[in-house]
Amino acid sequence: MPSIDVCFSPELLPLFKLQGKIAVAVDVLRATSSMVTALSHGVVHIAPVSELTECMAYKDQGYMVAAERDGVKAEGFDLGNSPFHYQEEGVRGRHLAITTTNGTQAIRLSRPADEVLIGAFLNVGAVADYLRKAGKDVVVVCAGWKGLFNLEDTLFAGALAERLEGDFELNHDATLAAYHLYQTAKSDLLGFLSKSSHVQRLERLHILPDIEFCLREDVYQVVPILQGDFLVPAQ
Amino acid sequence: MPSIDVCFSPELLPLFKLQGKIAVAVDVLRATSSMVTALSHGVVHIAPVSELTECMAYKDQGYMVAAERDGVKAEGFDLGNSPFHYQEEGVRGRHLAITTTNGTQAIRLSRPADEVLIGAFLNVGAVADYLRKAGKDVVVVCAGWKGLFNLEDTLFAGALAERLEGDFELNHDATLAAYHLYQTAKSDLLGFLSKSSHVQRLERLHILPDIEFCLREDVYQVVPILQGDFLVPAQ
Repeated sequence: MPSIDVCFSPELLPLFKLQGKIAVAVDVLRATSSMVTALSHGVVHIAPVSELTECMAYKDQGYMVAAERDGVKAEGFDLGNSPFHYQEEGVRGRHLAITTTNGTQAIRLSRPADEVLIGAFLNVGAVADYLRKAGKDVVVVCAGWKGLFNLEDTLFAGALAERLEGDFELNHDATLAAYHLYQTAKSDLLGFLSKSSHVQRLERLHILPDIEFCLREDVYQVVPILQGDFLVPAQ
Repeated sequence: MPSIDVCFSPELLPLFKLQGKIAVAVDVLRATSSMVTALSHGVVHIAPVSELTECMAYKDQGYMVAAERDGVKAEGFDLGNSPFHYQEEGVRGRHLAITTTNGTQAIRLSRPADEVLIGAFLNVGAVADYLRKAGKDVVVVCAGWKGLFNLEDTLFAGALAERLEGDFELNHDATLAAYHLYQTAKSDLLGFLSKSSHVQRLERLHILPDIEFCLREDVYQVVPILQGDFLVPAQ
């Protein structure tokens, strides 16, 4: 039976063997939620990049450019990191380049895996279906917050583990932790997270509607997958 | 109000500021449980060292030398990593040098803190009392397993957070995770841990009685503290 493991911080990723496995990169608040939303609303592909200058360079090629640092839109960019930015009719048929504090680094570091998917609560069921069909070992790569453990990405990992229960081994310690935390939190994810100093910091940025949206499960069916340098909807 | 934070792996410790804080190093299975047991049974002091050769060198100075690698006693040493080794009458008045796979590294890396304590379920109440009196910010440094997250050290952190609730802020994400996992697990810690592949690996070493003993709370009142190169009972 394949297994699902969870890496709580990109800093720990060198300890995981990704070859032969599928990585699911997650940054629930809000990078991967925004990416899932963008591809669901007709964005053709997404270039996840690490640096602001690298991101801005895509503008000359006709891309929409999006950048977030420390929770706010970086100066001079078209878009920030709110999923609502990617629900507008104007995004359909466009190409997007994006850089965020944590999420795009998690994607970059996941590249040694056989396949890199993008997960969020918004598409957790679709990701689970994809993984079940693939039947390979899985590592959920949590973006965390500047290298530190965070709860919301962990809860996503727990939700995904619950969806895969019975078809995947859940016996890695990190997976068991994520699974049990999700059991405790799932009836009220927002209430559970509201005690977190990290989420409180995000709330001070007045993005509570963003947070509520990002915690909704199975809103979209798209599974973003990395092909070369670009995220596209998996077929 | 002071806060309690949790570092799930020594690999993440560079992200934590330890200056001005108290570090509580924990390796429940079994290094710190054995250290607490040893000092409670009359060992004068303990030298926690990183390398086997460094540890063996203490033998010429009359120390008992203990070494564990990958769960078993290293060849040529007097003692391994079982707490039962340290309950014998013969340990009273002796000095001990010890090296283990994970625990002694966690202690070494905690040194930048103002004070380094040793925690285990066996002395969790005494550690909580010490911390409450000190009133400084706390970081629990989990030894983990070769850099990876583990459940048993996390559950200790959760137990300690529960004891400090009301007197310390528990709003760091890692602390909330540990606290909630402990709430789920505390009525049957061994049952909870028995699903873990890591604990299953230890069970295959036939140390189930060790594991059961290490999960008992408040057996001892000693609080080991690092003074120079040695762990001694805090006064």
